Amino acid sequence: MNEILNPLHFIETFAHDGTLNTIPVGVSARHVHLTQNHIEKLFGEGYRLQLQKQLSQPGQYAAKETVMLAGPKGVIDQVRILGPARRYTQVEVSLTDAYRLGVSPPIRDSGDLAGSSPVTIIGPYGSIYVKEGLIIANRHIHMSEEEALKFRVHDGDHVFVLSQTERQVIFSGVRIRVSPNYRLEFHIDTDEANAAKLKNGDHVHFLLLNES
Amino acid sequence: MNEILNPLHFIETFAHDGTLNTIPVGVSARHVHLTQNHIEKLFGEGYRLQLQKQLSQPGQYAAKETVMLAGPKGVIDQVRILGPARRYTQVEVSLTDAYRLGVSPPIRDSGDLAGSSPVTIIGPYGSIYVKEGLIIANRHIHMSEEEALKFRVHDGDHVFVLSQTERQVIFSGVRIRVSPNYRLEFHIDTDEANAAKLKNGDHVHFLLLNES
Repeated sequence: MNEILNPLHFIETFAHDGTLNTIPVGVSARHVHLTQNHIEKLFGEGYRLQLQKQLSQPGQYAAKETVMLAGPKGVIDQVRILGPARRYTQVEVSLTDAYRLGVSPPIRDSGDLAGSSPVTIIGPYGSIYVKEGLIIANRHIHMSEEEALKFRVHDGDHVFVLSQTERQVIFSGVRIRVSPNYRLEFHIDTDEANAAKLKNGDHVHFLLLNES
Repeated sequence: MNEILNPLHFIETFAHDGTLNTIPVGVSARHVHLTQNHIEKLFGEGYRLQLQKQLSQPGQYAAKETVMLAGPKGVIDQVRILGPARRYTQVEVSLTDAYRLGVSPPIRDSGDLAGSSPVTIIGPYGSIYVKEGLIIANRHIHMSEEEALKFRVHDGDHVFVLSQTERQVIFSGVRIRVSPNYRLEFHIDTDEANAAKLKNGDHVHFLLLNES
């Protein structure tokens, strides 16, 4: 997927009604997903996350609770927990954050944690050390099955996205994630958003690579 | 320059000897250029910057001295001064840094400071408040006149650059800066470097847009 094609020949794509295919942007700030067991270690026995705000992906929410992350070179405080509790604990940071912590996490899809970086997570009640669980999230597009049909892509495909901003960028290797539960959204981290000067709710263009 | 062409059709370029045209990357961390007058206000009367390390662009150096930057929402400490003294004081930060300081600097070429953001600069002897001078640097390529001939570009042109990394990206609107004093280098800030997973000394590919 990361092979160079020479020449690179992109075309913008259009929906059946003739409008340009665009995708709203969701910028993911650093955040933490926790198992219920880890929630209780950090916040106390029987503790349940409290909802602060629903997120755009159905069922996901920002919790009221935050934690501190610690690595060999530094700490980052007030890192938001996203609920609900998950089957695994996963911490997502930007590469800027990783330098601050002093770790070199791999760029991964959510849930692919084998060999990822260790991190210490500190809550008001206790702290935990996870041997692996810290990643930099691989940029991706969430979409429903209907939207996948419209964009002519499948779950797991990699596509190109054009940010038509003051800092114009074409992102390559953007992974498609299809689920009936997903709402159309291009997820990037804060480094990617800042490099392209993209904000939450901006729209990017969906490009196909024409191998002619 | 930021207009979308549809289709976008890039070609990689080759030197006369058939090798691919690539450009070494220089990542600019946040830094400060100061007038001699401001150096003396921050470090004391008659103070001269001390050389810590020569930079890749001839005559430019990282000074031993650092300052603190302060904005309405936060401070950033240990920001490196680059020497020698200049005719104007200019502070270059990433968009990540700008959020931390609480300012919205424009993306600008070096020296284009009219209407840029205010910032407070704090040294060990005194502090200064500059009404304008804080920018986010526009990505650019330094090159000599011979290299401009080789790449078939002119000073002020805007070109495309491909980062052939794990986080593959095509940067658009990269400004060409030609001077006999310049050494070939693609300058980006830390957000752009991290978004593309580029490091100092990596090489990017020079692309031409084929408007066929």
